[in-house]
Amino acid sequence: MNTDNNPYASLLGIEVVEVSAGMARVKTRVAPQHTNHLGYTHGGFLYSVADYAFELASNSHGIDAVGLTTSMEFHRPSTVGTALEAVAREIHLGKNIATYHIEVMAENKRIASFTGTVYRKS
Amino acid sequence: MNTDNNPYASLLGIEVVEVSAGMARVKTRVAPQHTNHLGYTHGGFLYSVADYAFELASNSHGIDAVGLTTSMEFHRPSTVGTALEAVAREIHLGKNIATYHIEVMAENKRIASFTGTVYRKS
Amino acid sequence: MNTDNNPYASLLGIEVVEVSAGMARVKTRVAPQHTNHLGYTHGGFLYSVADYAFELASNSHGIDAVGLTTSMEFHRPSTVGTALEAVAREIHLGKNIATYHIEVMAENKRIASFTGTVYRKS
Amino acid sequence: MNTDNNPYASLLGIEVVEVSAGMARVKTRVAPQHTNHLGYTHGGFLYSVADYAFELASNSHGIDAVGLTTSMEFHRPSTVGTALEAVAREIHLGKNIATYHIEVMAENKRIASFTGTVYRKS
Repeated sequence: MNTDNNPYASLLGIEVVEVSAGMARVKTRVAPQHTNHLGYTHGGFLYSVADYAFELASNSHGIDAVGLTTSMEFHRPSTVGTALEAVAREIHLGKNIATYHIEVMAENKRIASFTGTVYRKS
Repeated sequence: MNTDNNPYASLLGIEVVEVSAGMARVKTRVAPQHTNHLGYTHGGFLYSVADYAFELASNSHGIDAVGLTTSMEFHRPSTVGTALEAVAREIHLGKNIATYHIEVMAENKRIASFTGTVYRKS
Repeated sequence: MNTDNNPYASLLGIEVVEVSAGMARVKTRVAPQHTNHLGYTHGGFLYSVADYAFELASNSHGIDAVGLTTSMEFHRPSTVGTALEAVAREIHLGKNIATYHIEVMAENKRIASFTGTVYRKS
Repeated sequence: MNTDNNPYASLLGIEVVEVSAGMARVKTRVAPQHTNHLGYTHGGFLYSVADYAFELASNSHGIDAVGLTTSMEFHRPSTVGTALEAVAREIHLGKNIATYHIEVMAENKRIASFTGTVYRKS
């Protein structure tokens, strides 16, 4: 997987920090265009940050993996200027199916939690 | 809620079609910047489309509602040029908590399904 | 699928009402052994009722289907004596993956909502 | 919370191992009445084991907590005789809302993963 070529991540300003077998770390900073009408970081942006880490981690084994289902819990609001980091780790790797936990952090505070399951094309 | 003033929806090119009590409909068209490294619509973009309908429907009663948890299922891939529509409908409205089902459609085909639960600030 | 031979459904007293292609309906009545320490119906029991409808609907096509992921939202409490019905309907049927919505009802009130995704063994 | 008085947990044979602030551990052994028509542990039973740990952990702070939403991922099948343990840990504790991760293990193998969010009655 060429992690330098993700148009959606580029649009949102999410950068890859680290990818290894079954894990990935990405980072970004909340900008005005990432907020909702109340001035808080939009849930869709937080999801996209987590989802990018999920995509990188689940494709890290050299087999194409496509997202099947995800769930997300939003714990705390954040605002413009906040530095965010999302870390994905593999909690189950099967032949056809794998599952990942992703946490979205802002300076040691957990902003949101994400769980994603992929189908692996063999 | 001022539906014309959502910076994140503007960045992604998602438009409001209709909002009424407990429901909302939004639309968009998949553009190159909404895709992943494989050329398919990014999961984070599909989520953001559904999430915007969720946000509008859950804030349609005049009480601020904040997203607590969401789950999403991805059914079919889509590509650049696809016209997408997301419709949110309320399946439970309680005093503090409400839940919505959102379906993301492309010309009568269901692309993805989303369920979201909000906390209502009273 | 032999719907008469499900030991777990028998233990909990959940009965099959109807099964057809992509749908299933089951029913039960909340008994004292289905409650938690507060006297309310246990979340695990409500899940089990929904899950049985999910299992029947997803196995209704003659291909073994195994549960991959589920999400559930609890809307209202219920107590001993309540008659419950769960209805599963198919929202996507793919070659390898299918998804179902299940609603748990008590006399026209929605008690809980459930979404489940299966892997179909081909 | 009186952990000795849970009728549903008694019916299913799930025992409390340990409860402390924000965490809980329960155990059980899969019996014939916990299986589905294929002889595998029923998803509803696995959920109930995880849900009991979730209930104990979320009520461990002396404030009544009620389940709002849960998601579960099933990783591996298990059969009659398997010793199961579920451990709940708190990943976010807010004033009104808290979230928990629960893992269901069988001798160091992860059988299933569960995430649950509660509303805390203040």
